[in-house]
Amino acid sequence: MSLTAAIQSVSALVSSAKSSSFLGQGVGPETRFTSFSMPLLPSRKLSICKCVSAAPPTEQTAHKTKVARNANMAKLQAGYLFPEIARRRSAHISKYPDAKVISLGIGDTTEPIPEVITSAMALRAKELSTFEGYSGYGAEQGEKKLRAAIASTYYKDVGIEENDIFVSYLLFGANVKIAVQDPSYPAYVDSSVIMGQTGLYQKDVEKFGNIEYMRCTPDNGFFPDLSNVSETDVIYFCSPNNPTGSAASRDQLTKLVNFARANGSIIVYDSAYSMYISDDSPRSIFEIPGAKEVAIETSSFSKFAGFTGVRLGWTVVPKELVFSDGFPVARDFNRIVCTCFNGASNIAQAGGLACLSEEGLKLYGLQRVRRTERAVCVGALPGQELVDVFAEILEKTHLVTTPGSGFGPGGEGFVRVSAFGHRENVLEACRRLKQLYQ
Amino acid sequence: MSLTAAIQSVSALVSSAKSSSFLGQGVGPETRFTSFSMPLLPSRKLSICKCVSAAPPTEQTAHKTKVARNANMAKLQAGYLFPEIARRRSAHISKYPDAKVISLGIGDTTEPIPEVITSAMALRAKELSTFEGYSGYGAEQGEKKLRAAIASTYYKDVGIEENDIFVSYLLFGANVKIAVQDPSYPAYVDSSVIMGQTGLYQKDVEKFGNIEYMRCTPDNGFFPDLSNVSETDVIYFCSPNNPTGSAASRDQLTKLVNFARANGSIIVYDSAYSMYISDDSPRSIFEIPGAKEVAIETSSFSKFAGFTGVRLGWTVVPKELVFSDGFPVARDFNRIVCTCFNGASNIAQAGGLACLSEEGLKLYGLQRVRRTERAVCVGALPGQELVDVFAEILEKTHLVTTPGSGFGPGGEGFVRVSAFGHRENVLEACRRLKQLYQ
Repeated sequence: MSLTAAIQSVSALVSSAKSSSFLGQGVGPETRFTSFSMPLLPSRKLSICKCVSAAPPTEQTAHKTKVARNANMAKLQAGYLFPEIARRRSAHISKYPDAKVISLGIGDTTEPIPEVITSAMALRAKELSTFEGYSGYGAEQGEKKLRAAIASTYYKDVGIEENDIFVSYLLFGANVKIAVQDPSYPAYVDSSVIMGQTGLYQKDVEKFGNIEYMRCTPDNGFFPDLSNVSETDVIYFCSPNNPTGSAASRDQLTKLVNFARANGSIIVYDSAYSMYISDDSPRSIFEIPGAKEVAIETSSFSKFAGFTGVRLGWTVVPKELVFSDGFPVARDFNRIVCTCFNGASNIAQAGGLACLSEEGLKLYGLQRVRRTERAVCVGALPGQELVDVFAEILEKTHLVTTPGSGFGPGGEGFVRVSAFGHRENVLEACRRLKQLYQ
Repeated sequence: MSLTAAIQSVSALVSSAKSSSFLGQGVGPETRFTSFSMPLLPSRKLSICKCVSAAPPTEQTAHKTKVARNANMAKLQAGYLFPEIARRRSAHISKYPDAKVISLGIGDTTEPIPEVITSAMALRAKELSTFEGYSGYGAEQGEKKLRAAIASTYYKDVGIEENDIFVSYLLFGANVKIAVQDPSYPAYVDSSVIMGQTGLYQKDVEKFGNIEYMRCTPDNGFFPDLSNVSETDVIYFCSPNNPTGSAASRDQLTKLVNFARANGSIIVYDSAYSMYISDDSPRSIFEIPGAKEVAIETSSFSKFAGFTGVRLGWTVVPKELVFSDGFPVARDFNRIVCTCFNGASNIAQAGGLACLSEEGLKLYGLQRVRRTERAVCVGALPGQELVDVFAEILEKTHLVTTPGSGFGPGGEGFVRVSAFGHRENVLEACRRLKQLYQ
């Protein structure tokens, strides 16, 4: 096992927090439902195009460099899902200019940020025009006050301290074998491909080589059968998961931590959606005994406080987590942060601090979710076979969804419905879907 | 030649803009001087410690993962320069509590940001509290308006368009052979080491294996003798250079572009300090004919507008730049941006846009530099041998500088004096140095 370019570089996990998920298991009594998604078979015909086209350009440039294209980039499949959805949406709007199209595809936060937060950011911005208030470079690890506030707000009872918190996202590097939930947000797999950690895409099984896909479907309660999972260096685990919305229970996470301990793996736990948990499922992996020796946690203000555009997140690297030679992961992580990254915007950090102030926390209680962006139950719908369900839903209801296959082979047979959107739109979408499938 | 994980991941170039340089050649008549630095021999005794300690921890954790530490991290030398300087500074202050210590080591912007800029950021922050003004995810490539403003402000006459601009920093990845100016800002070399592009550190020559160090010293007018430079995939070139402050002339950059064309290399041109140029030296590599087929340019609002803490930069990847198979570099770059990066803070981008507004440009004319942060001539000082000049300067003048050796073997014999600081401090520093060395 080797971990090269370990934790190398910034921000694939930022992307992991990008899309919204429809929430299921562990989300609380009012909205609990068995699956985030509708058990429909999405069409295999939907070709998901790249953010960039795969076609080489016509021969028009006068000069070619001798630099070879990164072979890993060529491995990426014709699939950055979201641009294709955008294209289909545009085509649909052209076809039906008067239809009220509702997008439940790419989720996004929609509700204004409370003034207590934005005022803090505006104040920090204005202070930068004063001699007293101006500041240049901040600490690469993030501002001390914000790190302390994150530690005391989210990790008070689990022994995570200010120095374990890095106000940034970072990512593991090359030559690492990873495991991912299947389905999962595509950024884990795609960034792993770019880093050169994987083999080629295997069309027959719809998987990349050298990635362990941990099946998480209704059959196993959206939690992998760990007895079937082989040893890997890094286990990406997002809970509540995007796209399934399933939150792992305390028992399940205890199994995961014990599995990582037995195998010598490192869990990268993405808790970006933890604020949507309203039962007693853990909000942090560090609630599980022994996790500090096997896990890193990443999280974000994106969903919690509508900071998708403001950009602010953090990573917890406990001092107890060590490589096989005993060297602490946090020290290398810190070195990389110091060398390659200069920290988050001071203005965004002022906003983060305001979120965690007494007044901010009254608005954003740890267990409270803004109702307007809450998941809304759609309910299970009868299965259909071999039809392009994405296209059918779009055509008949003017609703834009996301085919589950875009999240891995485990997503086949599902569509993802994002519940991030204006509440009235989500409710209207539910009405249309009920009408179509009842 | 191969370029794997090409342009892989975010932000080593952010760090490249971190420290300030003392400006020399090409900086304009009032402040022109032959060298940024004082030709003194810095002590070889100065041990530059890491941002993170290299010492493994004592055996206290109950569990070790089986994940091997990234071997590239272990290659990094005991040298992240700046923490050691901070340590020496602290020790000096403890020793001389009443001394007026002036730090010319790590440079930083010091002057408040004009209100036209901060008001725009405050307004954008406040708008996020309104239904009309709220927005979630922005375009990964940066906001359209800002990309257009950067293109029209900086690249109007050189054929670089909005779509060539990415509001982010990115970096080349593994298995690339790089060339750097020697001396140069340590982030190029250190991030290359982390990416696994280099061999081991060779103590005798004070260089990493598999990096081409292009000597840039007073002997060659701070421009490399390209006839001695071997073929590499990527040539990092910063002009005006940090730490030498030397700006390459049009003739020199033409030579560099022709060299890259002949060798099939890609130049990564760091123009973060271009606003300090006041003669007719190019401010962008794209002023050189043929550069669009061989160069990427990175730049930043950090120095230009005091945005070191706000964080905002951009990268230009011309559509004409192609890999050896004809595939456009910009397409892979865009794919990586879409997959691994979600763009800069919307509030920071509002500030960037205000910098480039009519009113902002009146304050920050393209060729104007805020006088308070302008380089101040120190002048050449007599050489000394085998003394710890850094320590001598600190001890005798209470000035914190940076040993040139921290920037590569080409920095031996120099100290770097940052001119980013309050003007009165810089002038006082000059007086003390003149007194010491006259």
